[in-house]
Amino acid sequence: MSGIIEPRTLKGFRDFPPEQEGPRRKILAQLEKVAMDFGYQAIDTPILEYAEVLLGKGGGETDKQVYRFQDHGGRDVAMRFDLTVPFARFMAAHMRSLPLPFKRYHFAKVFRGENTQRGRFREFIQCDFDSVGADSAAADLEILLLIHRTFLSMDIPEFRVRLSHRGLFNRFLASIGLPDQSLEILRAVDKLAKIGPEKTAETLKDICGEERSQKLLDFITAGRGDGGWKEVLAKLETLSGGPQEDSTRLREVLSAMDDLGLGDSFTLDPSITRGLDYYTGIVYETFLTRLPEIGSVCSGGRYNNLLGLYSKDELPGVGMSIGLDRLMAALEELGLLKAQASAPDIIIFLLEGKLLAHYHGIAGTLRDRGFSVEVYPLERKLGPQFSYAEKRQIPWAVIIGSKEAESGLLQLKNLRNRETHDGISQERMIQILENQ
Amino acid sequence: MSGIIEPRTLKGFRDFPPEQEGPRRKILAQLEKVAMDFGYQAIDTPILEYAEVLLGKGGGETDKQVYRFQDHGGRDVAMRFDLTVPFARFMAAHMRSLPLPFKRYHFAKVFRGENTQRGRFREFIQCDFDSVGADSAAADLEILLLIHRTFLSMDIPEFRVRLSHRGLFNRFLASIGLPDQSLEILRAVDKLAKIGPEKTAETLKDICGEERSQKLLDFITAGRGDGGWKEVLAKLETLSGGPQEDSTRLREVLSAMDDLGLGDSFTLDPSITRGLDYYTGIVYETFLTRLPEIGSVCSGGRYNNLLGLYSKDELPGVGMSIGLDRLMAALEELGLLKAQASAPDIIIFLLEGKLLAHYHGIAGTLRDRGFSVEVYPLERKLGPQFSYAEKRQIPWAVIIGSKEAESGLLQLKNLRNRETHDGISQERMIQILENQ
Repeated sequence: MSGIIEPRTLKGFRDFPPEQEGPRRKILAQLEKVAMDFGYQAIDTPILEYAEVLLGKGGGETDKQVYRFQDHGGRDVAMRFDLTVPFARFMAAHMRSLPLPFKRYHFAKVFRGENTQRGRFREFIQCDFDSVGADSAAADLEILLLIHRTFLSMDIPEFRVRLSHRGLFNRFLASIGLPDQSLEILRAVDKLAKIGPEKTAETLKDICGEERSQKLLDFITAGRGDGGWKEVLAKLETLSGGPQEDSTRLREVLSAMDDLGLGDSFTLDPSITRGLDYYTGIVYETFLTRLPEIGSVCSGGRYNNLLGLYSKDELPGVGMSIGLDRLMAALEELGLLKAQASAPDIIIFLLEGKLLAHYHGIAGTLRDRGFSVEVYPLERKLGPQFSYAEKRQIPWAVIIGSKEAESGLLQLKNLRNRETHDGISQERMIQILENQ
Repeated sequence: MSGIIEPRTLKGFRDFPPEQEGPRRKILAQLEKVAMDFGYQAIDTPILEYAEVLLGKGGGETDKQVYRFQDHGGRDVAMRFDLTVPFARFMAAHMRSLPLPFKRYHFAKVFRGENTQRGRFREFIQCDFDSVGADSAAADLEILLLIHRTFLSMDIPEFRVRLSHRGLFNRFLASIGLPDQSLEILRAVDKLAKIGPEKTAETLKDICGEERSQKLLDFITAGRGDGGWKEVLAKLETLSGGPQEDSTRLREVLSAMDDLGLGDSFTLDPSITRGLDYYTGIVYETFLTRLPEIGSVCSGGRYNNLLGLYSKDELPGVGMSIGLDRLMAALEELGLLKAQASAPDIIIFLLEGKLLAHYHGIAGTLRDRGFSVEVYPLERKLGPQFSYAEKRQIPWAVIIGSKEAESGLLQLKNLRNRETHDGISQERMIQILENQ
């Protein structure tokens, strides 16, 4: 066996055979359809970029998650680890030639050398949607409606978008004398849903003392009472020093949701902060009611300085991102997605080599009528051909020997119920297939 | 400006803004449709693999085209430079769980650190189709029909698949005492169409002397006469020592094409060799009659030892590959593809912030009816909203002020011909849009 190389893949990198890649492409097509229904446009950017562009000038002591190396030209390059940074670079480069406001979607692979033990992958597809150039309730509302329609389009029965506003939260933090960008606090707050109020209170106490932690807890659990969002928002405003633009924005968005009859899908939840210093406005996460344990399947928020690293221009935006792996796992668990390879509608069995053109002629006719068809590529006994068709789960078979071919007839067999139509014409076959 | 990073991309790597990415995705969707019409299935493989897997054990002194580096775990890794090697590795790993024969398509990015001066890119999309597990005329015929349908589906008016057989050519080479896998000879022969018979003869003379080069030239130019493929094939058989399996295979395939009425699109051309030692059977290249200068837009052939590196099992196959860049350049030049961003069918202008829910309600209704719609996300004067709609080339605008909203009416404007429907109901709007 010397010379034979083991056909292995790198840890955290996956092959997608047809029964996985087929469904994945279907989901991507559905996401794309919704994006286009909202006027979002596709873009693409390189997988490999200058490390400086992806990591910033201080990218010297990069974390280990980034695949970074020197190319043959001695350039310091890196594989993208998300789609947001490349989008910022893209906008800085193309802003002047694009009509603003600009809405883009980008579904593509990203790479992170993460610890794979937690079921994480090192190569995975992210689905990002961003709307830039408008800081408005209308833009915020639209991306939330996009989330809503996305989940409806997948027949996901119950889901809830939990949303809040980072500006409002920052204002509250300032009002109790805490720095507004403390990642420590953001991360502790983020864990409320996971670890509960008691443990969160303990963590917060360690960070900022008894009194402040109690106030913080009051704020972030304000959404847990029986009141509707109006009451909750009024309380948050009181705790933060009164209404301002941030709370007004939330009010506008949530009122519009009520007016649209979608209030049930959106909840004001002040414990949502998205622990990144990047966000400045509305923030949200989406949970599936029947699968609370898998966490948020779709999240995002408003940021007001996308271009930061690359330009002095300011460009506000709002975005959301779907992790395709988690979404697909959820759909599978909900019974909405079967790991199943795509199969053609019809297989034409190969009985006699001299009828090759005849078989492929019929295949072509069927394709013209909108059916997908394959001709079995080997002259074998019918047994193996049937068994192949079964494994592929092809629903119909066409069987033609030289006698039938001469008289222009054929046999059509429904491989699911074994029903057979014998000695029928091509026209009749098409009738049957079209009326099934 | 210190701290600002120039938003540049690496040489040979490209951004795809909407007016390029939109059409690119459309072409990919068309290719996918044809693949599925033939029962091909989607797979995916990682972009990053063990260098040994992609390059073989002797990959130590790799050429400069491969992006290769050490990851954080000290593994010797490389970015894929084609889709064939990963497919071979994939089949070696999954063969036992896949129904054979197996047909897959894979449209994905590959990476080559090539010289970019010749208009080549370092990141580009390849579209590969392979059918493995059957060495038969039926399988060869099918992939040629797949090529045919692909070009028809793109409304490409005239194209010609030039095909030959490497087994036959090798037999001929042996008959005149030349080694059958000489890349030097294959490459010289490959240039016949580009540099003409005289110069080719000179090159060949340098390689194998006067007499053999003349015989070689006779063989590879045999397709240039007035005769049909039957005459040409008979001549090739004579030159190679009589009919054998290779020439019989060609005859079967070309006869079937005649029977299918597609003979005009397929030409027997013995100068086609696909200068790679990989191929063993039928080989082909596809040329667009109106754009001979761009060369082959689609090529491939039969190979009989896909798994070579990874397994002792033999797996025969036949494949074809489309370079997306070249295909898109061709379509653009033929006027079959406009660099144009996708645009929604309808824009709803934002006149009054308090009508936000009203606007988005109508947008939702229109989406339910199959239209793509966006609501302008900023409360601005109508002028800038019209000018945005124009830049995006959106065909219809809906205009609603608070008076119209109260009475449930609206204005619908055709932005192409400026025709206006004033004070109409939502039902009437949908009627007009559906009957356009």
